[in-house]
Amino acid sequence: MGEHSTSNAWMEILRFPLGGRSKKPRQKGLTMLLDKGLGQEETKDLFQAAGDYIDFLKLGFGTSALYPQKALEEKISLAKQFDVDIYPGGTFLEIAIMQDKLKEFLMLAKVLGYTAVEVSDGTLNISPEVRARTISLAAEKGFKVLTEIGKKNPLDRVPIEESVKQIQLDLKNGAYKVIVEGRESGKNTGFYDNDGHFTKEHLDLILSAVDNPELLIWEAPLKEQQQELILRFGPNVNLGNIPPREVIALEALRVGLRGDTLRSVI
Amino acid sequence: MGEHSTSNAWMEILRFPLGGRSKKPRQKGLTMLLDKGLGQEETKDLFQAAGDYIDFLKLGFGTSALYPQKALEEKISLAKQFDVDIYPGGTFLEIAIMQDKLKEFLMLAKVLGYTAVEVSDGTLNISPEVRARTISLAAEKGFKVLTEIGKKNPLDRVPIEESVKQIQLDLKNGAYKVIVEGRESGKNTGFYDNDGHFTKEHLDLILSAVDNPELLIWEAPLKEQQQELILRFGPNVNLGNIPPREVIALEALRVGLRGDTLRSVI
Amino acid sequence: MGEHSTSNAWMEILRFPLGGRSKKPRQKGLTMLLDKGLGQEETKDLFQAAGDYIDFLKLGFGTSALYPQKALEEKISLAKQFDVDIYPGGTFLEIAIMQDKLKEFLMLAKVLGYTAVEVSDGTLNISPEVRARTISLAAEKGFKVLTEIGKKNPLDRVPIEESVKQIQLDLKNGAYKVIVEGRESGKNTGFYDNDGHFTKEHLDLILSAVDNPELLIWEAPLKEQQQELILRFGPNVNLGNIPPREVIALEALRVGLRGDTLRSVI
Repeated sequence: MGEHSTSNAWMEILRFPLGGRSKKPRQKGLTMLLDKGLGQEETKDLFQAAGDYIDFLKLGFGTSALYPQKALEEKISLAKQFDVDIYPGGTFLEIAIMQDKLKEFLMLAKVLGYTAVEVSDGTLNISPEVRARTISLAAEKGFKVLTEIGKKNPLDRVPIEESVKQIQLDLKNGAYKVIVEGRESGKNTGFYDNDGHFTKEHLDLILSAVDNPELLIWEAPLKEQQQELILRFGPNVNLGNIPPREVIALEALRVGLRGDTLRSVI
Repeated sequence: MGEHSTSNAWMEILRFPLGGRSKKPRQKGLTMLLDKGLGQEETKDLFQAAGDYIDFLKLGFGTSALYPQKALEEKISLAKQFDVDIYPGGTFLEIAIMQDKLKEFLMLAKVLGYTAVEVSDGTLNISPEVRARTISLAAEKGFKVLTEIGKKNPLDRVPIEESVKQIQLDLKNGAYKVIVEGRESGKNTGFYDNDGHFTKEHLDLILSAVDNPELLIWEAPLKEQQQELILRFGPNVNLGNIPPREVIALEALRVGLRGDTLRSVI
Repeated sequence: MGEHSTSNAWMEILRFPLGGRSKKPRQKGLTMLLDKGLGQEETKDLFQAAGDYIDFLKLGFGTSALYPQKALEEKISLAKQFDVDIYPGGTFLEIAIMQDKLKEFLMLAKVLGYTAVEVSDGTLNISPEVRARTISLAAEKGFKVLTEIGKKNPLDRVPIEESVKQIQLDLKNGAYKVIVEGRESGKNTGFYDNDGHFTKEHLDLILSAVDNPELLIWEAPLKEQQQELILRFGPNVNLGNIPPREVIALEALRVGLRGDTLRSVI
């Protein structure tokens, strides 16, 4: 990371209250941002201030298709420069599958420089066979494959036991991590209730699906959710759908530099 | 638009699920942003990433008066460069009328390079005669005249039938489009209830006022409102008071590249 | 401020509806921003557009420790250039006290160029003696000392009468202003209820503690709170925890260029 190292003079005299935070490149403690339309300069400015705390940048939904070519290329190039994995939103790949363009999608993603893809069925119905094949194909092409469980629309909710099986199957098929759906709002979706809280029963069931909780990424756009997950799993829980301008505040939460988690260690 | 064209490589292989989106310069499918204080670099960065999706930039309330002269000139010049209409908030013109400075206001707006004005009575009481004269005077001077119906304070609410008549009168007097008030919050104002939903009865009455719904711009700051209006009127509904950082996400909603509207076409 | 003067051509023809707004450097009408992780370019862009309306920039919580050294130095240097006082969040100083590093903290803050500090016990318990010594030590070193009353966690709430005594003691010990806690959310904390409203009784008691309400800074992140305080105390009330992108909108509120306060003067 060279000049982007985050150590600054304060660390000469003070320790983080919550210790043991992992460093990039890391396999746990991942932070994934939801980019809904950052400009080039904003992206650069963000990476310069906080690049060490960003592991994945998701170009949300199908926004990948909406940038001018040059702006898209520049964004991908910036991500590379700061060792940030970048990928198009899951809905975009769902659309490609619907339009029978999976291979073209993966080829273009590779050419453009995306380093990951997300395989989901949050909006469309994707058959188990197509899901499995998509995961293995993308993994073969060298992408980090993130899969997602959970439906965007609460009316589509699937039984939690099915989600648990899906997690295990996805990992077996080559998924790098499995994302637990939280949407942009963090409320009334998949695994959060109307107030944005996890139901404990669901949480336990999901955890039972994996040997290692580090294989999961929790979409947790709201501070209360981030706090809840950090207090439960520690500073190195994987968190997703973080609003870009919250990433440094989240890092403060992770290491105990904010009242909400500092209290847990005093 | 030259280099700002939004076509990128993704469009070679994928189609937008919701087709028929209009292109700039357009008369329908307008997006108006509420600018509460963007810096110059932010404005430029925003236009470079999303200029094709922005039709109007409103310098909200009286913020026009609060920028350093150079910063204001630069903002107006950027708007011109990216074919974005720019105008001072309606409250600002209400203040000018209150201070008996309408002519000076329009002259200065012209000199500074604003291309539109908004005529409203959201806060002050403006007589029908003054409203009519303001609209025609501004139209004569070459401004695109947006008028607004609805009061900011729910206690001031006027009967919906009066608003309907006002729409027809404004258009006759030279208004380019009529804005349906939603404020910044989108809640408990004019035509939205406490939860930010339209009342169907109001919607129908407002629609009855115009031959062509394209003559209306709906202030819809909340995603749920944007979604509701796109699902009802299609991708080319005119939407206003969009937070600048939501404009690409809104465009994704318009063309079906986001779960919430994609579902409607599958 | 030179070229950053905010007068622009609009002020030649229009008056602010609420008059008497103070100018920088000022002792009242202070605006303090909560910076949760602005990048360098964002910070510069913000100061260029709104520097005249920003008195204090708080690097929230312990985020001071999370920037690369160069980015931190640049941020502090920008603040200096635009005559903005800059300081690390109160929680960060609480951590220093907990780790028995008060002197080192103040020395490093001075070397790095911070011009103010905040003494609080929002999260940790700080004895009255330590609080008093911290205030006077920091004042001796030349910092503007802001102290804060109120607990971050509603369960820790202290009797309002104690807070009143604390205000008087802090000012006697050398505090420049006393901040009334509102957190980032502005809800269910110290002096705000679940809906973000002041309780009138608390407000009166707090006011009774000071001869001069200008000695208080109210954390008021929500627009309704800003409006309530401006309508009660006038345009020159001291306000804190303002989200950076709201500072121009707040200034419009202060001077009556926005519907919500304009109504009060018509």
